[in-house]
Amino acid sequence: MARLGENRWGKSDVRVSKILRTESGDDFLDLTVQVLLQGDVEAAHVRGDNRGVLPTDTMKNTVYGLAQEHLNRDLEAFAAVLCDRFLEREGISAADVSVSQLIWNRRGPSGFVGGGSERRLGRVVAGTNAGVWAGVDGLVVLKTTGSAFAGFPRDEFTLLPETDERILATSVKAVWRYSATPADTTATWETAREAMIESFMGEHSESVQHQGWMMAEALLGAIPEIEEVDFRLPNQHHLSYDLSRFGIEDEHTVFQPVSQPYGDIGFIVSR
Amino acid sequence: MARLGENRWGKSDVRVSKILRTESGDDFLDLTVQVLLQGDVEAAHVRGDNRGVLPTDTMKNTVYGLAQEHLNRDLEAFAAVLCDRFLEREGISAADVSVSQLIWNRRGPSGFVGGGSERRLGRVVAGTNAGVWAGVDGLVVLKTTGSAFAGFPRDEFTLLPETDERILATSVKAVWRYSATPADTTATWETAREAMIESFMGEHSESVQHQGWMMAEALLGAIPEIEEVDFRLPNQHHLSYDLSRFGIEDEHTVFQPVSQPYGDIGFIVSR
Amino acid sequence: MARLGENRWGKSDVRVSKILRTESGDDFLDLTVQVLLQGDVEAAHVRGDNRGVLPTDTMKNTVYGLAQEHLNRDLEAFAAVLCDRFLEREGISAADVSVSQLIWNRRGPSGFVGGGSERRLGRVVAGTNAGVWAGVDGLVVLKTTGSAFAGFPRDEFTLLPETDERILATSVKAVWRYSATPADTTATWETAREAMIESFMGEHSESVQHQGWMMAEALLGAIPEIEEVDFRLPNQHHLSYDLSRFGIEDEHTVFQPVSQPYGDIGFIVSR
Amino acid sequence: MARLGENRWGKSDVRVSKILRTESGDDFLDLTVQVLLQGDVEAAHVRGDNRGVLPTDTMKNTVYGLAQEHLNRDLEAFAAVLCDRFLEREGISAADVSVSQLIWNRRGPSGFVGGGSERRLGRVVAGTNAGVWAGVDGLVVLKTTGSAFAGFPRDEFTLLPETDERILATSVKAVWRYSATPADTTATWETAREAMIESFMGEHSESVQHQGWMMAEALLGAIPEIEEVDFRLPNQHHLSYDLSRFGIEDEHTVFQPVSQPYGDIGFIVSR
Repeated sequence: MARLGENRWGKSDVRVSKILRTESGDDFLDLTVQVLLQGDVEAAHVRGDNRGVLPTDTMKNTVYGLAQEHLNRDLEAFAAVLCDRFLEREGISAADVSVSQLIWNRRGPSGFVGGGSERRLGRVVAGTNAGVWAGVDGLVVLKTTGSAFAGFPRDEFTLLPETDERILATSVKAVWRYSATPADTTATWETAREAMIESFMGEHSESVQHQGWMMAEALLGAIPEIEEVDFRLPNQHHLSYDLSRFGIEDEHTVFQPVSQPYGDIGFIVSR
Repeated sequence: MARLGENRWGKSDVRVSKILRTESGDDFLDLTVQVLLQGDVEAAHVRGDNRGVLPTDTMKNTVYGLAQEHLNRDLEAFAAVLCDRFLEREGISAADVSVSQLIWNRRGPSGFVGGGSERRLGRVVAGTNAGVWAGVDGLVVLKTTGSAFAGFPRDEFTLLPETDERILATSVKAVWRYSATPADTTATWETAREAMIESFMGEHSESVQHQGWMMAEALLGAIPEIEEVDFRLPNQHHLSYDLSRFGIEDEHTVFQPVSQPYGDIGFIVSR
Repeated sequence: MARLGENRWGKSDVRVSKILRTESGDDFLDLTVQVLLQGDVEAAHVRGDNRGVLPTDTMKNTVYGLAQEHLNRDLEAFAAVLCDRFLEREGISAADVSVSQLIWNRRGPSGFVGGGSERRLGRVVAGTNAGVWAGVDGLVVLKTTGSAFAGFPRDEFTLLPETDERILATSVKAVWRYSATPADTTATWETAREAMIESFMGEHSESVQHQGWMMAEALLGAIPEIEEVDFRLPNQHHLSYDLSRFGIEDEHTVFQPVSQPYGDIGFIVSR
Repeated sequence: MARLGENRWGKSDVRVSKILRTESGDDFLDLTVQVLLQGDVEAAHVRGDNRGVLPTDTMKNTVYGLAQEHLNRDLEAFAAVLCDRFLEREGISAADVSVSQLIWNRRGPSGFVGGGSERRLGRVVAGTNAGVWAGVDGLVVLKTTGSAFAGFPRDEFTLLPETDERILATSVKAVWRYSATPADTTATWETAREAMIESFMGEHSESVQHQGWMMAEALLGAIPEIEEVDFRLPNQHHLSYDLSRFGIEDEHTVFQPVSQPYGDIGFIVSR
């Protein structure tokens, strides 16, 4: 005879981001949530009777549905609201909610840097096709305003709405070639990095391509020794999560970050 | 003066799965697609004019939209259909479509094993809390029929439709404790693994929990030395991709595998 | 007042591989081992007194040291030998040893395929630079005999000994261009894959480059439509672990797989 | 007839770290290097003649061997020294050296924070076994002085030398339980994080366990609401790379960071 022991079911890796509007600008939260429930589900296991099995899809929706009203910097308070909500259901004996917040560093009124493993790059080729390159990889930047995407062509497969305001986030990889190696490559690298971040945070863009072009212009303007730069700007999508489906008036502050698939933008700019 | 050089834009990591119905049972494809376009987009970069920028979201939708009619085992033929489609657009000079197919091994009329890095586990604790465990991790199994999920409770956050037929896929981690170590631990492990796969492929289930319970019963039935087993069964969702939005009659053979978030099911079964 | 509660220390991710010589050819084990100990280490935590702290480096060495005599297909027996060894020490109250074996599939008397996530690749470019490519990625192959590396140049930084017999393992990425797309791309791909595996397993090589060249020749010989192939063959090193340092007569069957750094070999072969 | 086209060989993922001693304290570099060579190696591919094949193991050793004298913050200068060295060899036509530096943030005279993806954790359980937890994960800290490991027991498998000075690095995961939830969980979390970093950087330790114990004491001292804390401190080893084998007087500033295997330390501290 088999006997059911300890058990739980839930939803893991629920990614939710939120803009917190404040007097001094936007704040931004980037969370991964896990919900695990315990309860009276022996009939579900043994006989396939699902009457006690709250779907894990519903748990996910509950996280988004309650985020607009209840999520702010107090992670434990949000987790407690979720726990209470799930415990209200008959047959649930324990709710376990974990929240993991990725750290971002504020940069200006609506900009953020961080959330990854940034690297400085250097490269030298000697002999055939000789040259000197430098660059950055994993420079993650995000802004909550100052980015649009509209005026694009449509066909029968186009569902994307036009927008004049969206979250724009990307992990910058930029590799530039020096026509002459600067005297101080470290100071030059820091100036180059700052120029790209300043441009990203400060300039309104109509697309990732447009934003990237302006970053390239800023880079070439700041560092005369750069002859050419190769950008790769994967679009780290934060999708609007439609709360109106739950009868909630949607304030458009709650998003679903999605890592697959991603917009994949690359281009070279030279003098 | 900055000058735009080589450039491309596209969508990467587009995951699409498809059931191929055949006389001898279902075949199954698990693909990751990348679409990269080149064309006349200097105005988009320099002036933010998006009239030539086919959205990468549209590229993604095109992959799903054309998969029902055009995707079969001939990956290059599907890639060519996609290329032709994108090249039809004015202003596109090159289309580059890459398809990467994860290998699965057929097992029965609608079952598949593979697609990952499977491991056999062994564990011994001596001294305090002594015991002997064995197990499997990363045993990825999938079936295209024989799995339902219905009769579950609903609330205002429940959007999930009931279904009596869905793709069920999981990466089995099962760790069992031996009351007595078998004479031949390798042969025992192979028998245990077979029992779980047979049960998964052969038994209709009403939920992941129900499927897992039957696997546990099969395991305990096959190996008398097993006292208790701890299962973890992450639900590897293959979501229906609604083709009716594109004016296509949906045959429900095209799916979107989604790795985040995932249903997270765990339970212990003992004698 | 702070009080020490439950605690343990150990070594995780100890990678060990072993050749098992049998009458019917070589068998091969690829393991990752974790050792965790509990014991009387309050003085170590509170006062920095290390007299009870067996170094985790010693645990690692013990795994390699005992593998030659005690490791075979019975993972639990090896784990038990390790546990007993650690428990012999004064002050150790529990030893917990976990072994995770990566699955490889035997292929011939000394060859193995598997241990990863293999993918079939297809790619089509239309418009500028049009072409059709196919390929394989993550095809992991290993052989325990039939590979040498000697006769290379030496300088003051060269420590590598010459060898006429070593484990050779690589994860093949090969992408080939078709001059004409074959009628049956799936059957062609399977023939291509088999030709590469047969060549790897069957032909003695003097280096990764030499092995790869023969695989390319086999591929071009088997598939007339292939015009050119681009190979990438990262060397998955299995380093000899010098057991003589422990006073053990070294039979050269125990190895340390090392993933960082790796030899990185790439080349193109055309007709 | 097969014909060899473009080709290269080299060593990827060569990890090297270096302490730069300065008047104002220690600086620290954490690099991953790739070396790729091109040259006259057709005979190696086609006939297995290795006379032109500089071993990739030698390339790795060259990186470590030249790091002591030539590596500082100017990545491109170090890459150029390596290129020149490889180009001196007969038959080498191109050397391509890439350096990728992980970013760390200076903290005090010999401490560093960063190099990863840090997360703030919060967790609430309601119902059975209710409680509130908070914590940090991926808080990577390193110091170049102030850490020893000596006085440990030895057996025939012990090779580790005793040391009164080593690089100590770990990725802190600490999860604490609140006896009462603080009024401001965010400010409390920041105070908790600071207390752990201050303790790590400021207190000399005899082992990871000893360092962790002091961090736990600092944490309990700073936050009265914490009842218990569970630490996991994987030892991110930076191994001395013995340069004396190359006839170089070793100044002990060059290290090899190794991610597999790692010392795995965990313990609970309560009031």
